[in-house]
Amino acid sequence: MSLNTATVSRQWSLEECIAGCERHGIGGIAPWRDKLADCGTAKAARLIKDAGLTVSGLCRGGMYPAADAAGRAAAIDDNRQAVDDAAEIGAACLILVVGGLPQGSKDIADARAQVRDGIAATLEHSRKAGMPLAIEPLHPMYAADRACVNTLKQANDLCEALGAGVGVAVDIYHLWWDPALEGEIARAGAAGRILAFHVCDWLVPTTDLLLDRGMMGDGVIDIPRIRGWVEAAGFDGLCEVEIFSANNWWTRDADEVLRTCVERHRTVV
Amino acid sequence: MSLNTATVSRQWSLEECIAGCERHGIGGIAPWRDKLADCGTAKAARLIKDAGLTVSGLCRGGMYPAADAAGRAAAIDDNRQAVDDAAEIGAACLILVVGGLPQGSKDIADARAQVRDGIAATLEHSRKAGMPLAIEPLHPMYAADRACVNTLKQANDLCEALGAGVGVAVDIYHLWWDPALEGEIARAGAAGRILAFHVCDWLVPTTDLLLDRGMMGDGVIDIPRIRGWVEAAGFDGLCEVEIFSANNWWTRDADEVLRTCVERHRTVV
Repeated sequence: MSLNTATVSRQWSLEECIAGCERHGIGGIAPWRDKLADCGTAKAARLIKDAGLTVSGLCRGGMYPAADAAGRAAAIDDNRQAVDDAAEIGAACLILVVGGLPQGSKDIADARAQVRDGIAATLEHSRKAGMPLAIEPLHPMYAADRACVNTLKQANDLCEALGAGVGVAVDIYHLWWDPALEGEIARAGAAGRILAFHVCDWLVPTTDLLLDRGMMGDGVIDIPRIRGWVEAAGFDGLCEVEIFSANNWWTRDADEVLRTCVERHRTVV
Repeated sequence: MSLNTATVSRQWSLEECIAGCERHGIGGIAPWRDKLADCGTAKAARLIKDAGLTVSGLCRGGMYPAADAAGRAAAIDDNRQAVDDAAEIGAACLILVVGGLPQGSKDIADARAQVRDGIAATLEHSRKAGMPLAIEPLHPMYAADRACVNTLKQANDLCEALGAGVGVAVDIYHLWWDPALEGEIARAGAAGRILAFHVCDWLVPTTDLLLDRGMMGDGVIDIPRIRGWVEAAGFDGLCEVEIFSANNWWTRDADEVLRTCVERHRTVV
């Protein structure tokens, strides 16, 4: 298991997350860039190494579509920096949340083309750095404002178009509903392209589009089934727990959250 | 244009909706069953006929998956009644919101099989009544609790499996994000299977999963492009406006809402 720092985003700094992982016997961590910046990349790299943690990914690069060329260039610069940060902390991949519609645009096909071009531009740098890019398809409810790549099929198609150095992140929250999921996981696995596996749960009802994700076991996703598909496809990395939960898990004691993650990871994942 | 009564759900009875359509020069109506029951089906049929309105659909049948056989049988009975009601008011189709996971289930593949079987059981009755069933794929954010048919491809596949008497409802709110949409609309059209076309808009941000739909033009959907695909595929029915909006349009004067629908239908749809 790996702890995505978003799971205790309100409670802990990166330093506290690293210490918490050691305390709870969690073998991996996936920092977000804001926490990494607060800590300092060099210091974080040293602390993570000293704690013996695997870095299952750095969250996140992406956010490519922009209303003008200057915005697109700034996004590519930022992604190059993210690649360097990911390399410095020894991350398994840089997670890409690719971005949605530029301000004022209704052209999702154009946004998707901008994403393809932006990743291609990042790949020139990330290949040299030896840092794999992981395209994370996000749930279609984020198509407008966060990611216009919304199915694993789309992500697989993009990977085939872009060539070496790019793969996918499979997050069950975003993908559980997709009737094509099993086949697309097998397709990604056959190409050696599954770079990350993220878990949480889908709550019924869900009260907020962004910040109401559930702890594994509290929702309706058949997590073992999807984990079985991912592992049958050859993925042998860590199972990363990423829970955005403004009114529940972010309000609790962080050690209780980590204890619960570990217990649920053993029993329902 | 057709007025789905959900658009002024809080303000008006079916009788008031019918009178409102006449007043605003709207040529069609699509009642929900609760409003139809309040009015009485026979009376509603007479009022709609006297007003010269086309009935673009009756909302809704469906909700097939259930935890036990009694629940499934009750759903099929209810759908047969809905077919009869739709026929009595001369509806172009009965809209099916197919249902999500039964209470306690995490097996979405089984829910989808229950939907297929439930529609098949309804078809025995609806074919005799001459009432087309319109499978409405709902946005993936409703997969758990409202409809486990979430893409037009799924709906088209179901129609092919089920045979005559069943088609699809294309609602841009649910489908706008889908990279396969243009092709699947063409596929549905080639089979003469597009039975309804629903419009509203996707707001950014969306503050509620259910009740924060936007008026056409206020969101990010390229409505004319999708309407173009639907009409190029041979659909020549009414454009039905269906807006669930607890904190905006449901709080306004209903005549203002209808005036706005008519104006936006002319300018941005």
